[in-house]
Amino acid sequence: MINVSTLIENLQEIREKSPLIHNITNYVVMNNTANALLSIGASPVMAHAIDEVEEMIQIASALVINIGTLNREWVDAMILAGKAASKKGIPIVLDPVGAGATSYRTNVCKQIIDECKPTIIRGNASEIMALVNANIQTKGVDSTNTSDLAVDSAKSLALATNSVVVISGQTDYITDGKNVETVQNGSPIMARVTGLGCTATAIVASFAALNADKLQAATHGMAVMGIAGEIAARKATGNGSLQVHFLDELYNLNAETIKNTIKL
Amino acid sequence: MINVSTLIENLQEIREKSPLIHNITNYVVMNNTANALLSIGASPVMAHAIDEVEEMIQIASALVINIGTLNREWVDAMILAGKAASKKGIPIVLDPVGAGATSYRTNVCKQIIDECKPTIIRGNASEIMALVNANIQTKGVDSTNTSDLAVDSAKSLALATNSVVVISGQTDYITDGKNVETVQNGSPIMARVTGLGCTATAIVASFAALNADKLQAATHGMAVMGIAGEIAARKATGNGSLQVHFLDELYNLNAETIKNTIKL
Amino acid sequence: MINVSTLIENLQEIREKSPLIHNITNYVVMNNTANALLSIGASPVMAHAIDEVEEMIQIASALVINIGTLNREWVDAMILAGKAASKKGIPIVLDPVGAGATSYRTNVCKQIIDECKPTIIRGNASEIMALVNANIQTKGVDSTNTSDLAVDSAKSLALATNSVVVISGQTDYITDGKNVETVQNGSPIMARVTGLGCTATAIVASFAALNADKLQAATHGMAVMGIAGEIAARKATGNGSLQVHFLDELYNLNAETIKNTIKL
Repeated sequence: MINVSTLIENLQEIREKSPLIHNITNYVVMNNTANALLSIGASPVMAHAIDEVEEMIQIASALVINIGTLNREWVDAMILAGKAASKKGIPIVLDPVGAGATSYRTNVCKQIIDECKPTIIRGNASEIMALVNANIQTKGVDSTNTSDLAVDSAKSLALATNSVVVISGQTDYITDGKNVETVQNGSPIMARVTGLGCTATAIVASFAALNADKLQAATHGMAVMGIAGEIAARKATGNGSLQVHFLDELYNLNAETIKNTIKL
Repeated sequence: MINVSTLIENLQEIREKSPLIHNITNYVVMNNTANALLSIGASPVMAHAIDEVEEMIQIASALVINIGTLNREWVDAMILAGKAASKKGIPIVLDPVGAGATSYRTNVCKQIIDECKPTIIRGNASEIMALVNANIQTKGVDSTNTSDLAVDSAKSLALATNSVVVISGQTDYITDGKNVETVQNGSPIMARVTGLGCTATAIVASFAALNADKLQAATHGMAVMGIAGEIAARKATGNGSLQVHFLDELYNLNAETIKNTIKL
Repeated sequence: MINVSTLIENLQEIREKSPLIHNITNYVVMNNTANALLSIGASPVMAHAIDEVEEMIQIASALVINIGTLNREWVDAMILAGKAASKKGIPIVLDPVGAGATSYRTNVCKQIIDECKPTIIRGNASEIMALVNANIQTKGVDSTNTSDLAVDSAKSLALATNSVVVISGQTDYITDGKNVETVQNGSPIMARVTGLGCTATAIVASFAALNADKLQAATHGMAVMGIAGEIAARKATGNGSLQVHFLDELYNLNAETIKNTIKL
């Protein structure tokens, strides 16, 4: 259950401290991700060069690894940066974009999980389930519906990888393997804007940068995404204007709006 | 001549079946291309890794190859993906961005045409004419004006490559080498938004994914672009807002709007 | 001191001649940069392939080198293009994004400055100061406040590199090492949109393409950025809509708006 006061305090802290979020992310969403981090008050940096990722980690407060458009050189940089972040002790948030679509993506995620130990993993249900199949000896799951199956998968992945796992969807589920938090805010049209999932990953990273309770940080990040998206959806006339309104809403988000919009 | 009922049915089919369009495209337009495909109801995936393009083709319904920002590694991936698409029998739509501007671009297009046999080629007049010069022993062309010259070039390229060729412009010309269709909708301000040509290529691919008549598919794709662009241009106050309105109009496009706007 | 009539004439000339601006820039801003160049009336091309950059320079009127997301292959292309531009005698505008954040970035900038001799260097105060430290034996600077320190750094860098140096900020400073011009227009919210600094670099390049007086060209570019940004900020409700309004304002900028808005 979200503690609204803590959420508002954490958002305020991001705006005051402006943590530097180091993103190794895909070409499609780089611009929107950077703008969303600026909207919420964090500082984005995009850097993927083998020659600088380890040094960049030294000034960063969190690392986002997003495999949306990958190739071998980028994966090498992700692993280097991830190991440096792990050694430094800053949170790593993994976005396994398209895991399950090709074996290459699934295998790269498995490698990143094994070598970098991400703190938080955020994906949609099918991506998380693909990771479960790749990382866990699957035993029969007793779920009788898709939602339950997805949540069970998320819990299994969280326990197997010692991370917090987020499944985005109509309801977002956030779990450390034992506890499960949910976020009910959002709008179906958000799925029609490319990269809002990737944006969620980066926003979660900005909360994780300043909050040692990773289950809470991930939940707060998803709540803020859902609230801004839901208000933006009311104002939008299509997926083009939704993206614009979404950034504006995130930029203007305040205690009153959060309290009036959040669904607990 | 466009059959409006068939166009509307084909658009409806895209929205129902949401074909997966695999894009190997340039950095500048990736975000807008993905959003435009989501606007029309298709599913975009951007993937260029040598390690996955062939596998990605197995779940795709069409392939877009766009050379806007290319280098050797990307060209290798384009060829691999193109051969896999050709073997699987799904349509390949080539966007020869900047053909003629450098010999490298012209030669890469020639290589892609030779090795991948694209189904549809969409460019502006100068790009198409550069491909004609590279691919065809040019004989004297009898055209007395630029439009006619461009259309003759498109017809020659279509026949030489066994493809449908689209020339974007104030009037769009679409030809299989014998028949020539035209699209009259659109607005001059569309040329002031980067990548709307690339978007057209992707929208054409989403129609080609579900329609075996490639001349018709390409014509429908260009008609939908022109209609959405024309309405968006009426609402826009510059090229920034045009991009936003364009996506919204594509998202909201319906039978009534098409019937009221199309110029036959 | 800005000569408003000359500024307006130079803007008009960009719109008439539409100079081709060759950009080797970062993934985050490519789309916005291309759109801003189209807004102002220039023609953008993005090309980074080793196999074509030298040939592309032959048809370009200015080169932008922006190191925002770099790696070795891109740096090789920057150097190749920069040498070709230098040989041809067209202006090179360098954007040292993140100089000082990692030694790799600082060193790459130093290499580009040494080998390509940029005509104009545009960055924020900390980037310019990082370049000064890397390129100049620093002697004690007598400045008593940050602004003065930054301007002294810009002057030193300009003299050491025989270039015009621009520092973006609340006030923009533009110097050839002797004279210092200032631009007072703009809005603080511009810093919350990713890549508006990179956009400024490209807009400066479009003025430099047609004006042999590089101090004036850089000043005009920054003035146009500040004016369009300031008007856009009045209309925007957040950083999302600011980007959209900014492009529209740049697109619609005319003599009357410039005269009514410029702060001299």
